[in-house]
Amino acid sequence: MDDLLESGTTAADRAALADHLRTGLPAEAVLTDPDVTASYAHDMASFCEAGAPAVVVLPRTVEQVQHVMRTATALRVPVVPQGARTGLSGAANASDGCIVLSLVKMDRILEIDPVDRVAVVEPGVVNATLSRAVAERGMYYPPDPSSWETCTIGGNIGTAAGGLCCVKYGVTAEYVLGLDVVLADGRLLSTGRRTAKGVAGYDLTRLFVGSEGSLGVVVRAVLALKPEPPRQLVLAAEFTSASAAGEAVRLIMERGHVPSLMELMDGTTVRAVNAMAHMGLPETTEALLLVAFDTPDPAADLAAVGELCTEAGATEVVPADDAAESEMLMQARRLSLPALEALLGTTMIDDVCVPRARLSDMFEGVEAISAKYDTKIGVCAHAGDGNTHPIVCFDPTEPDEVRRAKAAFDEIMALGLRLGGTITGEHGVGVLKKEWLARELGPVELELQRQVKSVFDPLGLLNPGKLFDGQGGTGR
Amino acid sequence: MDDLLESGTTAADRAALADHLRTGLPAEAVLTDPDVTASYAHDMASFCEAGAPAVVVLPRTVEQVQHVMRTATALRVPVVPQGARTGLSGAANASDGCIVLSLVKMDRILEIDPVDRVAVVEPGVVNATLSRAVAERGMYYPPDPSSWETCTIGGNIGTAAGGLCCVKYGVTAEYVLGLDVVLADGRLLSTGRRTAKGVAGYDLTRLFVGSEGSLGVVVRAVLALKPEPPRQLVLAAEFTSASAAGEAVRLIMERGHVPSLMELMDGTTVRAVNAMAHMGLPETTEALLLVAFDTPDPAADLAAVGELCTEAGATEVVPADDAAESEMLMQARRLSLPALEALLGTTMIDDVCVPRARLSDMFEGVEAISAKYDTKIGVCAHAGDGNTHPIVCFDPTEPDEVRRAKAAFDEIMALGLRLGGTITGEHGVGVLKKEWLARELGPVELELQRQVKSVFDPLGLLNPGKLFDGQGGTGR
Repeated sequence: MDDLLESGTTAADRAALADHLRTGLPAEAVLTDPDVTASYAHDMASFCEAGAPAVVVLPRTVEQVQHVMRTATALRVPVVPQGARTGLSGAANASDGCIVLSLVKMDRILEIDPVDRVAVVEPGVVNATLSRAVAERGMYYPPDPSSWETCTIGGNIGTAAGGLCCVKYGVTAEYVLGLDVVLADGRLLSTGRRTAKGVAGYDLTRLFVGSEGSLGVVVRAVLALKPEPPRQLVLAAEFTSASAAGEAVRLIMERGHVPSLMELMDGTTVRAVNAMAHMGLPETTEALLLVAFDTPDPAADLAAVGELCTEAGATEVVPADDAAESEMLMQARRLSLPALEALLGTTMIDDVCVPRARLSDMFEGVEAISAKYDTKIGVCAHAGDGNTHPIVCFDPTEPDEVRRAKAAFDEIMALGLRLGGTITGEHGVGVLKKEWLARELGPVELELQRQVKSVFDPLGLLNPGKLFDGQGGTGR
Repeated sequence: MDDLLESGTTAADRAALADHLRTGLPAEAVLTDPDVTASYAHDMASFCEAGAPAVVVLPRTVEQVQHVMRTATALRVPVVPQGARTGLSGAANASDGCIVLSLVKMDRILEIDPVDRVAVVEPGVVNATLSRAVAERGMYYPPDPSSWETCTIGGNIGTAAGGLCCVKYGVTAEYVLGLDVVLADGRLLSTGRRTAKGVAGYDLTRLFVGSEGSLGVVVRAVLALKPEPPRQLVLAAEFTSASAAGEAVRLIMERGHVPSLMELMDGTTVRAVNAMAHMGLPETTEALLLVAFDTPDPAADLAAVGELCTEAGATEVVPADDAAESEMLMQARRLSLPALEALLGTTMIDDVCVPRARLSDMFEGVEAISAKYDTKIGVCAHAGDGNTHPIVCFDPTEPDEVRRAKAAFDEIMALGLRLGGTITGEHGVGVLKKEWLARELGPVELELQRQVKSVFDPLGLLNPGKLFDGQGGTGR
């Protein structure tokens, strides 16, 4: 049975591939044991197809990555680049017979420069490691996805990851100044800059950010840093509906406030977090809005925002007493997804971002969808960005429940597009939202995107089947 | 002689082109009088080749722009998109026999939304018009090139324009969320978003920003806005050399300050501004550094920064007393280029951006180049960005002086690259720096950039001969 695998690659093919890879990689960096390689098949998305890798490689140098890509091109083998596999769209899932190219061993911080305010890093550096290293130098690397303790900078770049900081500090894309990229054929491209400004030619750097490993393999990044701001202070406001909290967000932004965080948890999410972590969040609330400022006088800003919350119908407004209490509220917000998973079963996580003026419409629409499909949907949101994460919960052993969950998941994206939004604010497309990407982009842009892909990857070897379907070439 | 023009287009060709254009444009929007069309041949760069346009069109609608591009594609005529022609690299210069596509009549502000913090505009809106319109609503559109009173948003997008604000607020690219673009073949592409976040597919929006009209014609833009900050307060510090001022910049950034402006004028520039506008700037200084803050307590920030200037060797540190005095200092800075031109003849303006830690090296290098070529070079700089504008002054009637000026201009770019910088921080490549773009990018990136160009403009009709040389196709 091992002679001809499901994937169409034979054991002999696999052995030849591994041998070829070992000519430029140390033995321990080439994994072929199927029990081991299988553990690299998936990221954290549910319900996304994944194949069996032929081999997993763990290079430590740029030259080794070049060798991997030259091998892949020579043998026409698809390559799936991976970081920590914390993604939520299946973008890092293996395809059958592929080389999984894990960058986690390239994890050095090469430089931190407080004058140029840049860090130069390898792709496998964990977000939290970088964040702490720059904080020790009085600086700040803002992008902070919920998985920041484990996710890698390379993965953050691949998905243009967001986080809690974005309402004030923007997403990963805004911090990537320059990249070294190994191209599909093994050539090394240096693009972008380490200067504060630069407009020499087309912005290829930004093209790689969010490209989900489908245009090249990032092997080095120059990242912009900011001076460390004062510690933020958080306020929690309770509302009788998510929609009312959305109205508060509208008022706060309209009045020109610049919060460093503005997050929403609906009642379902709040109760799940309480059940899991006993955090003492208000058990009966229907929506909890967290607003923070890292300004010189955060208490004054919170007081002004508290009044706006009350104007929008908040039933309770509680500023945190100190940094510790603020951190506890942030921690509660970060627990939203694990808590819903622990309490309510398997989840599918939407990532719809709407113009923030339409946030209340979005919340009401999700409630209607939940009722229509008789499906439990917990909602958390980076409310200040209009970026909602309706989390559809279901029992995967009940086929009808699964069917209804999938229908609800899709209808939430349709709603987002109707409200002028996007199907993905920060999680990316992967395999989970391919069909929806085509709907969002429309035929003209989709065709251009495919052609851009062909420029960088004419053989269709890099992460085939992600973002959009088949490129021709040998990608399956 | 009018029968066969130098360009190889005949008068009959030109008449047929104009007739074709008039089938979809009002008569007054198609200009063919050579005296009139000649006035659209140049932007503001010196020493850049420019051809004679066959026709100038002034569309008012997206459909009219589509008609122009369909006509150009059908007849294989090159198209040069133009805004206010305030560019400094020849990127908007006509090529012989081209259609000049001026967007200045598409000048409507379509929407200003204080909750989503976006403005939706046509490309011909003047930067200052937009800035004032959003200021009336309590908001702020930061990008402020020195030509902001006349330059258009479309031109700003084409060059990814910077300005004085960038040290705190970044360049135009960071404010472009979404674009409507008419492609070379006349199809309309909508790319990007109006939401705060969005990662659906490759970032084509950013690819258009800074592409100098060579990938498509921007007909609508969704721009991000910020809440209006407090008025800034400026400090002026005198130094005995530009290099010493560069050391102050290094200290200020290293200590984590976030000035809203940090500009440098060398002694030559200061004296030129005094001679032209009698502004009472210190006549004997060798470098004047302007630093501003728009924080809640700018006076305190200026005091701290003033001490760092003294530490770096400032001979005099004078905070402005009020907003009016601050505005006067800003005005002096904006006059640098016109003053050098008025006083010292024709100019070639470098736009080299270096890592700000290398600013002093850059200033010393420029001084050495000035001595080597016996050429007057006035230096002003967006010092906080490391973006220097050495302005090479010369008498265009003296061939040897012209030769030495050009050599100095080039050697400054070589120096910038040696220091890890870029040949262009904000002015773009145009025709002035084509050869240098190839040197900065190297062969791998240059080839990829050409291939990207071919995806969007397979016939090479859009602004041919800008950024890099010939694309094949019919572009000359």
